[in-house]
Amino acid sequence: MGPGEKAKDIDLQNARQLGKLIAQQSWVLLTGGRNIGVMDAAACGAKSVQGLTVGILPDRSFKNVSKFVDIPIFTDMGSARNNINVLSSDVVIACGIGPGTVSEIALALKASKKVIFLTGEIESFDFFEKLSPQLVYYVTTPEAAISKTKMILNDSK
Amino acid sequence: MGPGEKAKDIDLQNARQLGKLIAQQSWVLLTGGRNIGVMDAAACGAKSVQGLTVGILPDRSFKNVSKFVDIPIFTDMGSARNNINVLSSDVVIACGIGPGTVSEIALALKASKKVIFLTGEIESFDFFEKLSPQLVYYVTTPEAAISKTKMILNDSK
Amino acid sequence: MGPGEKAKDIDLQNARQLGKLIAQQSWVLLTGGRNIGVMDAAACGAKSVQGLTVGILPDRSFKNVSKFVDIPIFTDMGSARNNINVLSSDVVIACGIGPGTVSEIALALKASKKVIFLTGEIESFDFFEKLSPQLVYYVTTPEAAISKTKMILNDSK
Amino acid sequence: MGPGEKAKDIDLQNARQLGKLIAQQSWVLLTGGRNIGVMDAAACGAKSVQGLTVGILPDRSFKNVSKFVDIPIFTDMGSARNNINVLSSDVVIACGIGPGTVSEIALALKASKKVIFLTGEIESFDFFEKLSPQLVYYVTTPEAAISKTKMILNDSK
Repeated sequence: MGPGEKAKDIDLQNARQLGKLIAQQSWVLLTGGRNIGVMDAAACGAKSVQGLTVGILPDRSFKNVSKFVDIPIFTDMGSARNNINVLSSDVVIACGIGPGTVSEIALALKASKKVIFLTGEIESFDFFEKLSPQLVYYVTTPEAAISKTKMILNDSK
Repeated sequence: MGPGEKAKDIDLQNARQLGKLIAQQSWVLLTGGRNIGVMDAAACGAKSVQGLTVGILPDRSFKNVSKFVDIPIFTDMGSARNNINVLSSDVVIACGIGPGTVSEIALALKASKKVIFLTGEIESFDFFEKLSPQLVYYVTTPEAAISKTKMILNDSK
Repeated sequence: MGPGEKAKDIDLQNARQLGKLIAQQSWVLLTGGRNIGVMDAAACGAKSVQGLTVGILPDRSFKNVSKFVDIPIFTDMGSARNNINVLSSDVVIACGIGPGTVSEIALALKASKKVIFLTGEIESFDFFEKLSPQLVYYVTTPEAAISKTKMILNDSK
Repeated sequence: MGPGEKAKDIDLQNARQLGKLIAQQSWVLLTGGRNIGVMDAAACGAKSVQGLTVGILPDRSFKNVSKFVDIPIFTDMGSARNNINVLSSDVVIACGIGPGTVSEIALALKASKKVIFLTGEIESFDFFEKLSPQLVYYVTTPEAAISKTKMILNDSK
């Protein structure tokens, strides 16, 4: 998860690498599915190594779908689809921050999902750590996000 | 699409064969994702030939998911998820009839999606044909449903 | 509930009278909230006698809201809001028929809600009576719809 | 908007007073509708002066509805209903903080809605002010929240 329109360069780079690493683990990448920002970058990374990508779209038509999404799910429910994104993810990784991403992190915590922060902004992590200390993790590289994800998946077995 | 709890034997047989044929076309099978009725049978058929299956669940947890679903999408929105099912499908095939299936057919027609009726109950087809004559098709075998789907996909190119 | 764009004159007349009678019972009228068809007519009838009207909109803005709706609820989820309409109604009255209305009737039956058909089209009633014989009623006047609603509400106490 | 299960005493007191003041302005109070926390307290305050209260419920049945809600809207869509809450509000007032409330604030900002923070926790305000400086306001009393709301409503005319 991460910003669409206003994603920073570092977040896009992280997202691309993260998508690639997720695909190399043979995991399915789930994003918000649009052709912009972190969603698009992560899907692009995953497809660069033939990963499988799912996109949960806010819209009902193909107009704004990332070309790197294999399976577009059209919800036609705008930002309410953010709840589906997190409920359908085993682990949520936040790559950068913005209002939409904050809503996804909060909905994930509400649903007791683990969230990994891959973002330079330690303040965002601090804010959420106060809300749900047991559910959040801070990392600074895509590789560390993968390690942390493996740990979480192992713990939940 | 088709009944869960009260599916007829003929609908289950058709669904299994249909799932298999869809997978053999290398199409992705999308169902309601539960471990029961037409959803389960279609996903079972698709996996019997290594197809890819997506399930759009009404719930938020793995409790009632078909074991033949590769990619479960958890909506936690009950029957409102039926709208996502049809918006995310290129063609909707109704395999048997029940209140949930009727809602999916109606939502599909509302969204101008083509619907193929693979069901012995010609009265259901007649009812919807009056509502949306341009959007509905009647077939009696899974093989005919596939032919009709190809025709629809070709026309929409 | 009833058609928006393609409502028949008789359905609009019935809806207006029904809205008025509902308000005179001091019941809250719930509709799909748009400024068109049966939704608009029913809300207009209710406001003609100072009733209270709620509209569950498919959109997220005031653009297409009926001016007779006191409390607009903006769902931004298109036709999926039809499920909210029926779940939030004590009794569903279908005033005419169309794909959207059919989806609402089917979602109501799926949720075990009672549905009253106030429509000249007996075929629609026949179709749904086969699906859920215990849940559907046929009437030919708004007054009869009110009587039937009272009976249903009494039975559910 | 505000916490359900883990609301603080000060937030409950503020919510009750706020509900009362909202009703005294003849505004309709919209909450998440459950019989707990800030939702219940705000609705209680509004009803103490005969206000009109709407509750947008995450569930599909009357089981957990606040007795102070006049018009319950049953969404059966869990936390995704938070988006409906904010889209249907002219102004969002956050009374305390928690994961659900954070998701509502974020969804409000995503939808360009103004949000007033009535909470002792200045850190929450600071966090969101960085995200959307033009859309957030900080107040320390229910009375100030009402004044700010009037100002926002006037500006939007």
